[in-house]
Amino acid sequence: MYRVIQYLKLGEVEMVENVIIIGSGPAGYAAAIYAARNDLDPILIRGLQAGGQLMLTSFVENYPGFESILGPDLMEKMSQHSKKFLSPNKIIDNDVTSVDLNSFPYKVHVEDKVYETYSLIIASGASAKWLGLENEKRLIGKGVSGCAVCDAFFFKNKSVVVVGGGDSAMEDAGYLAKFAKDVIIIHRRDKFRASSIMQDRVFSNPKIKVIWDTVVEDVLGTDHVEGVKLKNVKTGEEKIMPTQGLFIAIGHYPNTDMFKGQLQIDELGYIVTHDSVKTSKEGVFAAGDVQDRRYKQAVIAAGWGAMAAIEATKFLEEKKIVK
Amino acid sequence: MYRVIQYLKLGEVEMVENVIIIGSGPAGYAAAIYAARNDLDPILIRGLQAGGQLMLTSFVENYPGFESILGPDLMEKMSQHSKKFLSPNKIIDNDVTSVDLNSFPYKVHVEDKVYETYSLIIASGASAKWLGLENEKRLIGKGVSGCAVCDAFFFKNKSVVVVGGGDSAMEDAGYLAKFAKDVIIIHRRDKFRASSIMQDRVFSNPKIKVIWDTVVEDVLGTDHVEGVKLKNVKTGEEKIMPTQGLFIAIGHYPNTDMFKGQLQIDELGYIVTHDSVKTSKEGVFAAGDVQDRRYKQAVIAAGWGAMAAIEATKFLEEKKIVK
Repeated sequence: MYRVIQYLKLGEVEMVENVIIIGSGPAGYAAAIYAARNDLDPILIRGLQAGGQLMLTSFVENYPGFESILGPDLMEKMSQHSKKFLSPNKIIDNDVTSVDLNSFPYKVHVEDKVYETYSLIIASGASAKWLGLENEKRLIGKGVSGCAVCDAFFFKNKSVVVVGGGDSAMEDAGYLAKFAKDVIIIHRRDKFRASSIMQDRVFSNPKIKVIWDTVVEDVLGTDHVEGVKLKNVKTGEEKIMPTQGLFIAIGHYPNTDMFKGQLQIDELGYIVTHDSVKTSKEGVFAAGDVQDRRYKQAVIAAGWGAMAAIEATKFLEEKKIVK
Repeated sequence: MYRVIQYLKLGEVEMVENVIIIGSGPAGYAAAIYAARNDLDPILIRGLQAGGQLMLTSFVENYPGFESILGPDLMEKMSQHSKKFLSPNKIIDNDVTSVDLNSFPYKVHVEDKVYETYSLIIASGASAKWLGLENEKRLIGKGVSGCAVCDAFFFKNKSVVVVGGGDSAMEDAGYLAKFAKDVIIIHRRDKFRASSIMQDRVFSNPKIKVIWDTVVEDVLGTDHVEGVKLKNVKTGEEKIMPTQGLFIAIGHYPNTDMFKGQLQIDELGYIVTHDSVKTSKEGVFAAGDVQDRRYKQAVIAAGWGAMAAIEATKFLEEKKIVK
């Protein structure tokens, strides 16, 4: 676990970590719990905002074992759970600046500090996508939001628009309907891809209406959102709709920028894995939404995190780095 | 969801299920929760003994979100969780007698009742292995046990032997040491494959000793276990060791007998899967220890269960069986 560096003075050793885990969603915490219990004394780099995407959700009802729990509460439980096994000084609440996977041991930079490690578990997750409109960017925090749970309260008795058609759009609409006067979901297709139970909740909520086959072409307003310009993708018809809030729930992109050129990454930006969690580099594993094009579920991410820690352990044993 | 059968009288319909889930470990419950939340109204066949292998463990400390929970308590939480979404009449506490996967819809027999289903999730798990000795079989329940948690209490202040080298052998030894006078682990190799943390607990427990490179060749005793015959696999040396209990913890075999000849199964009896949970038959999915040669962890099984339900939903949508 320690490697003596030639150019250091006698007696000095530079420490090389067994494993560094990047991320603190379900995959990161699961990996941390498993790696620590396998005596790898891992470093867990949680980032400036620990907890992953579940921090931005309300009730989670599909993580087996918890009938209904607030996303942030579940993540707090996982955080506490990981602290039971991790060394306190090995939890880093800062962002990774860059990684170097072109020489072994690998290097992970966190601001001006460099960590060397024999293996790496990437569980850096995904972030919310935006529409990519100039006025959308300009009005973020002024009526445009990527987080209904964070901001719904500010739209009490106001009219809001949600863009999207997946589970998170349904959840956002339902959550917003508790506060807002009315909620309109704008969806570019004629059908949601959300799960039936989430769709049912939306359709049975009298405060929520849906506009199908429609995209948001522009966001209107100077200091705050005043309306959206809509276009029907089938008829081409355009219209202005007044609204005070615009919530974007059109999906996520994997947080893989710093790995580009160093690992195999697919055309959508996901880390390519084989055997569940192995990447194109030996000793580098990826778990959770950073490599998951298909499922994006907390318990599945946690399962992959556990797998990554088990595979990292096997890798370190095979390399005779740990016994 | 309903298929009218030609030969039935007018107005009669025979119901074909969307999905049947076999098993009630973490994979089965996760599949049930996800399938029910996707509006598939699944049947969950839990078996006569619901709960899977965690029913036979003591503390689980690696299911993310629960720092420390008794195996049976975790399974009770998952059971309650599944009941929140399942139809009460669709939970079947009986064993599957046989399945017929050679015609579609598939058929699942439970005693004299036949269920037809468009898709099937196999989460039937694994069962404890035995040494395969005649006297071992004869003395089961008379000192020979496959479940330390179930039977440890009966060995208060007695000497017991545990056979195995994995996590469950370590756990069994630790659990037995709370009751027994002394515990001897017999392992056929010179190293455990158990995780470090589990090994550490064993090595630091003064009541537990290990005999390496040794196998149990016979079990001695007429009405109850009185000793074991040991053989050192390196030296060939044989000896008799008195003991009052023999706990077998040498692993598990997947419960796949009823699928043999109907699905692709590997040489160790595991269901062969591709894309994580897909079997050799369309619409038939396998999740958890029944297809897992490598990990055998609760959270990983739960992740696979969730995947299987999501894949079953996609399959039923593609086949236009559900919208």
